[in-house]
Formats: sequence, structure tokens, C-alpha cells
Amino acid sequence: MATNQEEVSLLGVIGSPFVCRVQIALKLKGIEYKLLQENLANKSELLLKYNPVHKKVPVFVHNEKPISESLVIVEYIDETWKENPILPSHPYQRSVARFWSKFIDDKVVSAAWKAVFTVDEKEREKNTEESWEALRFLENEIKDNKYFGGDEIGLIDIAAVFIAFWIPIFQEVGGLGLFTSDKFPKLYKWSQELINHPVIKEVLPPRDPILAFFKARYESLAASK
Amino acid sequence: MATNQEEVSLLGVIGSPFVCRVQIALKLKGIEYKLLQENLANKSELLLKYNPVHKKVPVFVHNEKPISESLVIVEYIDETWKENPILPSHPYQRSVARFWSKFIDDKVVSAAWKAVFTVDEKEREKNTEESWEALRFLENEIKDNKYFGGDEIGLIDIAAVFIAFWIPIFQEVGGLGLFTSDKFPKLYKWSQELINHPVIKEVLPPRDPILAFFKARYESLAASK
Repeated sequence: MATNQEEVSLLGVIGSPFVCRVQIALKLKGIEYKLLQENLANKSELLLKYNPVHKKVPVFVHNEKPISESLVIVEYIDETWKENPILPSHPYQRSVARFWSKFIDDKVVSAAWKAVFTVDEKEREKNTEESWEALRFLENEIKDNKYFGGDEIGLIDIAAVFIAFWIPIFQEVGGLGLFTSDKFPKLYKWSQELINHPVIKEVLPPRDPILAFFKARYESLAASK
Repeated sequence: MATNQEEVSLLGVIGSPFVCRVQIALKLKGIEYKLLQENLANKSELLLKYNPVHKKVPVFVHNEKPISESLVIVEYIDETWKENPILPSHPYQRSVARFWSKFIDDKVVSAAWKAVFTVDEKEREKNTEESWEALRFLENEIKDNKYFGGDEIGLIDIAAVFIAFWIPIFQEVGGLGLFTSDKFPKLYKWSQELINHPVIKEVLPPRDPILAFFKARYESLAASK
């Protein structure tokens, strides 16, 4: 638990999958924190000071020390507050967790994003294929486990909240079959477990405004064709 | 130290900065291992079995358990063999090390590569600018320290061996001023410290064949214009 002496805050925006990762980790650990909402169209001095490199959220600030990059933050939280571990204790299992969470960032996030938010049909097809290929690896990895972390939520599940919550929104926006229960039955079952977990439910942003936000973005992109 | 009962091997190729990272970590820890040389034009069954996702080197194999992704491997090595720590012990310093090593992979490696190995002048300019911008952040971060890790080589130094050894080769091949002592005096000084460190010296591949290899690659690309 964070003590009264500790200052814990998070610079973020509602609706970002990367901010949500940090919020899940904090909720799992039971850490109280102050959410400092950013306006990405007019970034705060604090954000530019604390993340001069990427100028992006999330930035986690613990006793005035800032940390950026969502997965780096989640590991920091796990190392700082030991209860309810997020990474496994054995080095090999830890490496597996790091491998797949990196895989999600490298192979799923941008492919799924580009599959929807492009006006180029060929780009869409290519990125849809790439999303499928990446999701197939995860379908194979989840097997019949409840979570990637086993019986409890772990690092991969936290990284993959993007797949469970954001990809279904994206595919609704773009009218695409990116991540369906037919194509990925095990991963789909996992995604339902995850978004219905009481901790995750509490942390996820409300679906409708996020859907409306991405729909508007999609339509303005389509209109610019 | 690895005991006699342990099997430690590394699937790799000579001349890869990513394989070299793992070799540095193993050398710093004093771990004996078997280097299984891959031919990337004709990948071994073992490589395809152990890294079906990326089909790339390095793959580190410890007691028949394979691990991919160079930085994930280095963290595994650091957690498994405790002597001569590569990551700092404090969670905040660990997060800083992880942030900058990820930064090197995300912002330096591909920009420097594309600045040289492209036939498109605009691409070259854009990626040269991006390389400079990224290196400026590192110039600022190294300050007057001997290594990013302080007095000893740490995770960022290992990740940044790409900058110290490979970028100078790339810029010689392409006739570019990517990373000069004028532009980046502190980072240049650091790079000289690093490549002259006895452990690094022993692990780095011989410069001339690597230069010839990349020169041939560059010339065949230029000829295809």
C-alpha cells in the first residue's frame, strides 16, 4: 500500500489503452493515486517536463520521479509494491511474460490500428492479415488457460487489454472482422473473462463515448479521401 | 557460474548487434556457452522451432528452454546469474534503464539503418534527422558519466553497443555524418570507453569483415536504383 507520505500520480487521458494498463496495475495493487488528466491537443507543462522524449501519456510519477512507457511503468509498480504480483517469480516465466507483452506492442497494436484507420485498401488488407497472424500466435499461447498469467491476471493480460477492449471497438468502427469468436475462439473466451474481471471492469473506460470518439475519427478520415 | 549440469547455448550470427548484446551479458557474468551459428539464408530447424514467432536470432537456450528478443534475454541472464549485476537494484533506476534501452530499439536502430540503407534521398534525410534527434537525447543522458550504468557497464550500455560499434560502420559505408565527435562529444567519448572495455573488446566481431559485409549490401542496393 502507498503510505500517506507517498505521492503517486498518473498523467493520462481516459480512453487510452496504454494509460489503462497502468490503471489496472495500480488497481490490482490497491494503490491510491491522483489522475492528472491531460489534453493532448494542448499538453501541460508537467507532461513536457516529465516526458520530454516522447511527450506522451501515460507518465507515472512516484515521489516526484517520473516514469514513461506503459510496460516499463507496470514493471516498476510490480517491483515497488510486492502484493498481488503481476510478473511471475521465476526468471524463465518472467521472460515469457516480457516476450509476449513486447510482441503485443510490436505486432498487434500498430497493425490493428492501421487496419482500421487508413483510407488505402491495400494498407487495410495488409494490416488485417498482419493482425490475424499476430492474434493466431496469441490464440495458440493462451491454450485453455483462464488468463495468460494462469489463474490470475499478469503482465501479458494487462498488455493485451488492448485486444480485449479496444480491438472490438475498432472493428465495430471499421466494420471489419479483425477479432471474432469464430476465428479466435480461445482468445475470444479469454477476452470475455478479462473484461468481466471485477478489477478490469472498474478501470475500463465507458465503451460508448470511446466508440463515438473513434467513429468520429474514422469518419473524418474517410471524408478526407 | 553455470554449473556442469547446465546447458547454455546461443543461436546467433557473427556481426549482429542483437546477438552481441547477449554475448556481452554472458561475458560479464562469466557464463560459458555454446554458440550455434545460424545461416540466415537457410535457417536451421532449431531456430524455427525455438523462435517460431520471429524466426530471428538471437535465441538463448538454457536447459532446453528458449528465449528470444535480445533485451528480454539480457534481463533473464541478469536475473538467473546474480554476480556482476547488469540492471541497477533500485526499481526507479531499473525503470530508467528499461526506458532508455527501449528508446534505443525504437528510435535509434531503425532510423540509423534506414538513413544508410535506402536509395531514396528524402528517406535518407528524414532518417538522418531522426537519428540525430535520438542521439541528442542520449548525449544529454550520458552527461559526464563513464557509462550509462555509472562506473560499470549496464543495460543501456549493452543496448547501445549498436551506437558505439555499428553506427560508425554504417556511416563509413554511407559516407554520412551520423554520429561524429563534433556533434555528440560526450556520447562519442562514451563510445570509445565502451569499445575499449576489455570485455566488450573480446566480444565485438572483427571490424573489417563487418564493414565489408555492409559495404557490399550498400553497393548492391545502390546498384538497384
